Amino acid sequence: MSTTTTWQSGSGTAIDDATLDRIDKWWRAANYLSVGQIYLLDNPLLREPLTRDHVKPRLLGHWGTTPGLNFLYAHLNRAIAERSQSTIYVTGPGHGGPGLVASAYLDGTYSETYSDITEDEEGLRRLFKQFSFPGGIPSHVAPETPGSIHEGGELGYALSHAYGAAFDNPDLLVAAVVGDGEAETGPLATSWHSNKFVNPAQDGVVLPILHLNGYKIANPTVLDRISDDELRALMVGYGHKPFFFEGGYDQDEPIAEVHRRFAAMLDEVLDEIAAIKARAAQGDVSRPQWPMIVFRTPKGWTGPDYIDGKKTTGSWRAHQVPLANARDTAEHLEVLEQWLASYRVAELFDATGALDPDIRALAPTGDLRMSANPVANGGILLRDLRLPDFRDFAVDVPTPGGSISEAPRVLGEYLTEVIRRNPDNFRIFGPDETASNRLQAVYGVTDKQWNADFESPEVDEHLARAGRVMEMLSEHQCQGWLEGYLLTGRHGLFTSYEAFIHIVDSMFNQHAKWLKVTNDIPWRRPIASLNYLLSSHVWRQDHNGFSHQDPGFIDHVVNKKAEVVRVYLPPDANTLLSTYDHCLRSRQYVNVVVSGKQPAPNFLTMDQAVAHCTRGLGIWEWAGSEAPDEEPDVVLAAAGDVPTLEVLAAVDILRRELPQLKVRVVNVVDLMRLQDAREHPHGLTDAEFDTIFTADRPIVFAYHGYPWLIHRLTYRRNGHANLHVRGYKEEGTTTTPFDMVMLNDLDRFHLVIDVIDHVHWLRASQAGLRQRMVDARLEARQYTREHGEDLPSVRDWVWPDAQDLSSSEQVDATVFTGGDNE
Amino acid sequence: MSTTTTWQSGSGTAIDDATLDRIDKWWRAANYLSVGQIYLLDNPLLREPLTRDHVKPRLLGHWGTTPGLNFLYAHLNRAIAERSQSTIYVTGPGHGGPGLVASAYLDGTYSETYSDITEDEEGLRRLFKQFSFPGGIPSHVAPETPGSIHEGGELGYALSHAYGAAFDNPDLLVAAVVGDGEAETGPLATSWHSNKFVNPAQDGVVLPILHLNGYKIANPTVLDRISDDELRALMVGYGHKPFFFEGGYDQDEPIAEVHRRFAAMLDEVLDEIAAIKARAAQGDVSRPQWPMIVFRTPKGWTGPDYIDGKKTTGSWRAHQVPLANARDTAEHLEVLEQWLASYRVAELFDATGALDPDIRALAPTGDLRMSANPVANGGILLRDLRLPDFRDFAVDVPTPGGSISEAPRVLGEYLTEVIRRNPDNFRIFGPDETASNRLQAVYGVTDKQWNADFESPEVDEHLARAGRVMEMLSEHQCQGWLEGYLLTGRHGLFTSYEAFIHIVDSMFNQHAKWLKVTNDIPWRRPIASLNYLLSSHVWRQDHNGFSHQDPGFIDHVVNKKAEVVRVYLPPDANTLLSTYDHCLRSRQYVNVVVSGKQPAPNFLTMDQAVAHCTRGLGIWEWAGSEAPDEEPDVVLAAAGDVPTLEVLAAVDILRRELPQLKVRVVNVVDLMRLQDAREHPHGLTDAEFDTIFTADRPIVFAYHGYPWLIHRLTYRRNGHANLHVRGYKEEGTTTTPFDMVMLNDLDRFHLVIDVIDHVHWLRASQAGLRQRMVDARLEARQYTREHGEDLPSVRDWVWPDAQDLSSSEQVDATVFTGGDNE
Repeated sequence: MSTTTTWQSGSGTAIDDATLDRIDKWWRAANYLSVGQIYLLDNPLLREPLTRDHVKPRLLGHWGTTPGLNFLYAHLNRAIAERSQSTIYVTGPGHGGPGLVASAYLDGTYSETYSDITEDEEGLRRLFKQFSFPGGIPSHVAPETPGSIHEGGELGYALSHAYGAAFDNPDLLVAAVVGDGEAETGPLATSWHSNKFVNPAQDGVVLPILHLNGYKIANPTVLDRISDDELRALMVGYGHKPFFFEGGYDQDEPIAEVHRRFAAMLDEVLDEIAAIKARAAQGDVSRPQWPMIVFRTPKGWTGPDYIDGKKTTGSWRAHQVPLANARDTAEHLEVLEQWLASYRVAELFDATGALDPDIRALAPTGDLRMSANPVANGGILLRDLRLPDFRDFAVDVPTPGGSISEAPRVLGEYLTEVIRRNPDNFRIFGPDETASNRLQAVYGVTDKQWNADFESPEVDEHLARAGRVMEMLSEHQCQGWLEGYLLTGRHGLFTSYEAFIHIVDSMFNQHAKWLKVTNDIPWRRPIASLNYLLSSHVWRQDHNGFSHQDPGFIDHVVNKKAEVVRVYLPPDANTLLSTYDHCLRSRQYVNVVVSGKQPAPNFLTMDQAVAHCTRGLGIWEWAGSEAPDEEPDVVLAAAGDVPTLEVLAAVDILRRELPQLKVRVVNVVDLMRLQDAREHPHGLTDAEFDTIFTADRPIVFAYHGYPWLIHRLTYRRNGHANLHVRGYKEEGTTTTPFDMVMLNDLDRFHLVIDVIDHVHWLRASQAGLRQRMVDARLEARQYTREHGEDLPSVRDWVWPDAQDLSSSEQVDATVFTGGDNE
Repeated sequence: MSTTTTWQSGSGTAIDDATLDRIDKWWRAANYLSVGQIYLLDNPLLREPLTRDHVKPRLLGHWGTTPGLNFLYAHLNRAIAERSQSTIYVTGPGHGGPGLVASAYLDGTYSETYSDITEDEEGLRRLFKQFSFPGGIPSHVAPETPGSIHEGGELGYALSHAYGAAFDNPDLLVAAVVGDGEAETGPLATSWHSNKFVNPAQDGVVLPILHLNGYKIANPTVLDRISDDELRALMVGYGHKPFFFEGGYDQDEPIAEVHRRFAAMLDEVLDEIAAIKARAAQGDVSRPQWPMIVFRTPKGWTGPDYIDGKKTTGSWRAHQVPLANARDTAEHLEVLEQWLASYRVAELFDATGALDPDIRALAPTGDLRMSANPVANGGILLRDLRLPDFRDFAVDVPTPGGSISEAPRVLGEYLTEVIRRNPDNFRIFGPDETASNRLQAVYGVTDKQWNADFESPEVDEHLARAGRVMEMLSEHQCQGWLEGYLLTGRHGLFTSYEAFIHIVDSMFNQHAKWLKVTNDIPWRRPIASLNYLLSSHVWRQDHNGFSHQDPGFIDHVVNKKAEVVRVYLPPDANTLLSTYDHCLRSRQYVNVVVSGKQPAPNFLTMDQAVAHCTRGLGIWEWAGSEAPDEEPDVVLAAAGDVPTLEVLAAVDILRRELPQLKVRVVNVVDLMRLQDAREHPHGLTDAEFDTIFTADRPIVFAYHGYPWLIHRLTYRRNGHANLHVRGYKEEGTTTTPFDMVMLNDLDRFHLVIDVIDHVHWLRASQAGLRQRMVDARLEARQYTREHGEDLPSVRDWVWPDAQDLSSSEQVDATVFTGGDNE
């Protein structure tokens, strides 16, 4: 897969002066190109005196972090070339975009990728102009940047992404630069612990480089303002062996000496990694003290020391665009010109504007170039999963409601086979909840990967130094690891509590934006979808209550571009299987699947489930009471497993109490089907919508989440004025399932009341039935208050065609006996 | 405020046996009451042999963390009483709810708060039954629990909350228990660094206690499975002096000895804290190495070692409800009975069920009881802010659009005076963005509080050991600190980037739920609102682009209970002032205020602004072209500053090009006014809505955020069928403001096109104007592609009544010259 297979030690000899000079020239060239991108519209080689017109009218971007990033890139080039070490570069401070674009240009990748950005003066002009310019490229290390898997727009995920890339890539080195601002974020602060989840033989190596340039936008950084002793202790505490480097502060130290010191340290670090790898190859996969580098250099290094009398380089003032008013005065223009000239561009590029080949020679070639490494364009490496036939895992459904399953447990059986067939490119991520979410069958074929200490087997169940399940109690880590894993061409899923998946709302945002942008970048190949399984959902938080209730992640997801998001609410086990098979085959989506983990009736046979999932939504004729070729009196629709159950229980009542009423039952698996075909590729046309929901009959819609989402998805539909949605509202805590459902008017009795209230000819005639439904609710509520569990007639209700089952032991033993595991 | 004022050293003498016995009895009583709450429906004093009917039918809750929490509470009681040290207890593992309820019951607070839970057998029965029972109390340390400011439903914020409580509470000790599961979360991992932001003289003390019981739901914890050396290094790296305690593993050690060791260590820790406080009182406020405790005890300590042959105590199996099937077999019932009996209840409670007074005597009295400390019911201590008259800070608006301001900069002047008048109960929190968000005027009267190292003043601007501004690059920290500060009776605001405020979506959820629940708890007094200022908003991410764009926090907020959320979109500086005055006076809300930081025209005088904000929305007659007593042909509405500008620019075109057209201009400040009066207390009635928006005229609505929110808020309105919303869509990056607006069809030209398209008699007659608008957009777009800035005629547009200004230097110098500071 990668172009190298060994972890080589260095030559062991000192680095010669010519190489050091080459490194310095590369660094100067990268810095020059970075400054050029931020400031210049023209005159890219400084062939003429700098004028106001050469400078961009609006100066945008970030200089401060860039020279440090360029320094590291230059040195890594040398080491990679020497060791033929497949390496990618993760840029935590992603606003250092100009630096990564510059480096990709210098090693040739950029011009190979974007043929219009040629290796000559005109190409340089275009390279400069396009940066952070309308119609050009973003200021961050965005999908447009070759070699990037990490935009770094929102800070905090550099190490999570880096480790995600390293898992199952045994020959890969991930050089992960962590900004000292980013290091203050929570997600980054815990991501150091990723090293407890790495297997030195089977996984690649992450080399964290803490870029301690000391300042953020307007403040010093915490880690720069604690003692070296404390910082060393922190890194040792995180499980690392820190190597401290400081450069650029001592004005008397020749730059060649700075390069010599860093190159030697980098060799030492890489040799130590090679030694760890060698030990792992010999079978010692216990957790080593992985090296990391503390890289202390001035913010804005090589820029103007002072601007307008204010300290700039080595301060927060260098963060964004120092000299923001470069065009305004001759003095400022002069400062910029001198700054640019300080890189001695004539030594770097020839008369045509082409880079000196000797500088280019610092970089490795082909796929070994960090900007060209195929790992960072994971779609290239992506292999389809070898999937079993999900139909083989179907649960038996003799009649609708005629059997009971915990749907995710059934999915777990299927995933077991997925894992067996795909031992090195599929992982399950979750915050300590894989078993709680009922996927524990997978432990029949794999373990939870863990490389901290072990104790006795009686407590360390399913824990091993290698395994397909990754559990750490941090949703940020799970999401970040999975994103890194997917972006480098693998597959996976993330199981979490529905309420707490909001913890990664903003990470989801960034990933969805990445997918959206890459859809428009031809050279970026599609990657596997990011699959969520939310099986501890809002309706069953018996152990936890109100703090664990929130179905709003779906709302959040639906705000993103329709082409990248999908939301599924399979009502039972077979539909969940069919849905997940689809998700695991898909590309470039975020798939959100919500499916409760409690025992619940199965309604569809596998054939029916496949058909239902293929349609995404449909009429359940077996449940309704409409006659063929007649319009129904009312439509009862459901999306979600609990709503489906309550709708069917309501229909059961309606069929008994109002046999004359023509009820249509609709079930929605694919929520996006409700949307307008013009707004979402899965959306129904208005005609299709009317066929299913009618244009003018009352629709009582029981929905899993916040009710207004259904209104939002359907507000343009003909039938919208007749649509009445029941869903989750912020109403507080409860501890029995039906109590919760009642609290939200989503219960069977209330749905019957809704039907009476909205079918005009029932309103007058069915006051008695209506009152009985009100009483039934009161009785059910009162029962829970006394007994702490649901009324047996509610709890044990089954669909009438499955009555035989209602008295069987199977139902009694498994339904609603509490125990969602946390 | 608190009942003590000094930090006392301990007696220095060894703890006597009677005290140790009292501690142990308290602990046994608390454990007994905890087990009782989880399992028992009846027989609370074990007066008769335990039967199946005494046990709850559904066993819910969490035992594992509880005995450790009880142990700590007992020991803290002893120390608090001895030192008269005002102390609150923050329970990171909030699922240990039974323990905190038990402790509050033991010290008498619970019965004082809930008169029905009496101190006798019947009270115990009620105490047990109510726990995690329908109509009862939640399983977590919820608002219902006396002494709680931290529910701990979602994990990760224990230390942030603790430090928020400690700021400006110089005499307060916050004992903050951090679960070792919670310690794996990102927010918790960075919150250790809070100690760099504490002033030892002016602030209280947080004593972190890492509860290392070794296991989560189904896994060991990371921090329990690294060496003591690594863990010690980690804590030292975080800036702490760790004290290690281990108890409960050595079966041969008498429990009295365990207590003796812990009590002695606790005294040592508290003496060290007292010494730090004494040094601070002498003027040494430099950062000390604050003590923390590593508290290693078995998970589920004192519970059954093995259940059904499986290791339970000291393992993850003790996490939730061990013996989940306690009712099922005689053997299990026997295990439960023996477990309960092990606490020797007859030694703890008398015949009536009252606690032995000697045990009660362990606890401090009155407000010193941790469950009764008024700090944990902050509304009691809340003082109104002394607010200046915001009108004094008004900007001059000679004519609409006749002056230009950066609205948050004006707000900053006002906040300066707020800070001056409220030096010890108001703080501003933000992730390194207070100046970027244009509130830098506050540095005239205060500084950023910082207690890490200092360097030279030329880089450490506005940095001091005490100050009202708190900046750390972690939205989680800012939110958590502010929440803790508010919950303990103070005021504040949080400034952040609009896109990245999603980072705290789930924290907002938890806080909104807390507010919602406390509204129904009479003894919880209202606290100050949580105020957001989102001034780096979606429409102006010139430096950053697509990754920094997302206006969806508003959507997220609106999902919460209407009674606790407010969203404001002030269109200019004076409306922002009026809005914020209102926010700072309000209680029990989350106020989201979105107001751009770029130079923009002012439209309303202060009197107009006050009237407009009081109404929340209104017709801007000066802008429209409707005649009095006539219905308009079209309504142009705006919510948000950029939309307001574009709507007015569109109206300018319409007034010139179509003088016969009667245009109504509506502006919305308070987004909740759009909602139905039945759904939100701010909502308009349908009649009011029709009066403003008409029932049947086309409405073109320019909105700051995702357009569908406006549909969701108005879908039941008469005029909804005629409503056409323009807002933000996920369309990708751009770097000039107008480019961005065009990309989303929110620009002036497109709004004119919308008017033509929706006013039926214009559709046929104004094809020419329509085409000119299309051309104008193309021209504007083309200009940005060439020049990198907006077309001057677009950039410099001003409202016609303010034409004199358009050529003035003021506009040229400040409008749209780039430079949002990151």
